[in-house]
Amino acid sequence: MCQLLGLNANTPTDLVFSFTGFAHRAEEHKDGFGIAFFEGPGARLFVDAQSATQSPVAEMIRHYPIRSRHILAHIRKATQGRVALENTHPFMRELWGRYWVFAHNGNLVDFQPKLHAAFRPVGDTDSERAFCWLMQELAKNHASLPSVEHLTMTLAELVPTVARHGTFNFLLSHGEALWAHCSTHLHYIERSHPFAAAQLQDADMTVDFSAHTTPQDRVALVVTQPLTCNEDWQALRSGELAVFVDGHRAI
Amino acid sequence: MCQLLGLNANTPTDLVFSFTGFAHRAEEHKDGFGIAFFEGPGARLFVDAQSATQSPVAEMIRHYPIRSRHILAHIRKATQGRVALENTHPFMRELWGRYWVFAHNGNLVDFQPKLHAAFRPVGDTDSERAFCWLMQELAKNHASLPSVEHLTMTLAELVPTVARHGTFNFLLSHGEALWAHCSTHLHYIERSHPFAAAQLQDADMTVDFSAHTTPQDRVALVVTQPLTCNEDWQALRSGELAVFVDGHRAI
Repeated sequence: MCQLLGLNANTPTDLVFSFTGFAHRAEEHKDGFGIAFFEGPGARLFVDAQSATQSPVAEMIRHYPIRSRHILAHIRKATQGRVALENTHPFMRELWGRYWVFAHNGNLVDFQPKLHAAFRPVGDTDSERAFCWLMQELAKNHASLPSVEHLTMTLAELVPTVARHGTFNFLLSHGEALWAHCSTHLHYIERSHPFAAAQLQDADMTVDFSAHTTPQDRVALVVTQPLTCNEDWQALRSGELAVFVDGHRAI
Repeated sequence: MCQLLGLNANTPTDLVFSFTGFAHRAEEHKDGFGIAFFEGPGARLFVDAQSATQSPVAEMIRHYPIRSRHILAHIRKATQGRVALENTHPFMRELWGRYWVFAHNGNLVDFQPKLHAAFRPVGDTDSERAFCWLMQELAKNHASLPSVEHLTMTLAELVPTVARHGTFNFLLSHGEALWAHCSTHLHYIERSHPFAAAQLQDADMTVDFSAHTTPQDRVALVVTQPLTCNEDWQALRSGELAVFVDGHRAI
C-alpha cells in the first residue's frame, strides 16, 4: 500500500521533520516517491521513480527547508502501472488558471471512465485516470474557479462514482485548500498554540514546535498512518471527505 | 535577456557539463531558473525562483546526473511578470496524454490572445500566455497526437502570429522532439562520432566526450549563446523553426 502525507497551514511551513519520518516508510514502498509544494499559485513537483530512502531528490528535500502552506507527498508501492516516472504521484494538471495536485492510495478495479480531450493520463495507473476524470467533471460543473465550499460540494457528488471501484484514499490541493478523502486509512492532526514537542514514530527524532512557531500559526497534517507517537491523531471514517483551509479542518 | 538551453539525444544523456557552464550565466539572470527532464513519457520539472548560482535545487542538478533524451533549461531575467515561482520557466501542460514543456526568451508586447477553458496561464507572463495559446491551437488542429512532421507544419503556421508581437525565441518538447524557434539568438550543435573534447566558455572545465559515449550516440544542443569555445555552433536565422529528433536536426 502506498503512503500519503499532506500539509495545510496558515503560514509557510517546512516539512523537514515530517518528511524525515515519512521517508523512513519508503523502505517498504520503494517504487518511487513524489512531493509537491505550492508557493502562492506556483507549484514545484519533485518526483523520482527511485525509493525515497535512496533518491538524491529526497535527500535534498530532507535538508532544504522549502516553506509552503500546501504540501502533498506520496511514496509508492506499485499496484497498477509499472515503476516509471510517468506513474509516480503526485500528478499535476492546470484548471481555471490554477495548478491542481493529486495523490492516491488504493486500488481501483475496472475504472475506465470516458475521458474527453481536456484531461488525459500520460501514464497507465488507475490513480491518474481517476484524477483526470475528477478534473474533467469539475471543469464541466464550473466555468471558472468556484469557492472552496462549492468545490467541496461538487467533489462530494463525484467521489462516490470512483470510490465504488475500490480503495480511494486521496489528497487533492489547488494551493488554497487540501481535500482528503478516506476509504480505509487516513489520519489527521491540527497543531496550534500552545505548541508542544512531537516525537517521530519511525525515527529517533523530536521537535519542539513551540521553538519554531508563533501563537498565530496553525498547521494541519493528514497522513495514512500517524507520524508521531505522542499526539492525538484523528482517524477519518470510510467515505469521509475532509477539507483543510488555513491550517484547520473547515468541513 | 533570459537564456535557453535544450538537449535532444538518441540515448539518455546527462547535462552536468553543459548545465555547469549554463548556470554560470545565472549571475546576470538571477530571477529564477528551471529545468525539465523527460524520462519516457514522464517528465520532471525543477523550478526555483532563486538564482541558479545559489539554488539548492541547481546544486543538486549539478551533481546528480539525471539522464534524459530531452532536456529544457531556462535562466530568467524578468521582463514581464514578477519574480515568483508561477512565472518561472519551463512551463508544463498535458495535451493528448503527453506532457509538453516550453521555455521562452524575449518579450512579447500586447499579446493578449483569447484563451478558452482548456489552457489558462497560472502566472502573469507573456511567455506562459504564448505557451497556452500554442497548446490551445495545436489541440484545435489535431484530435490526437500527430507525427512530428505534422506538428511542425502546424507550429510553423501558428508561430508567426505570436512572433509579430516581439522577440519569440523558444524551446518546446513533448518528449519525442525538440522544437527551437529563433527570433534573435539561438545556436545549435550536433555531436556525433568521432566525439572530441569540449571546453566550456564560462568555466574552466573540459570534457572529453569520446570517453563517455559510444559510436552510435548522437546529441544536439540548442542554446542562446554557444556554451563551448572550441566547437562549431550554428546560428539559427530569424524566423527559423528547427526540429531535433534522435540527436540531430530533422527539419
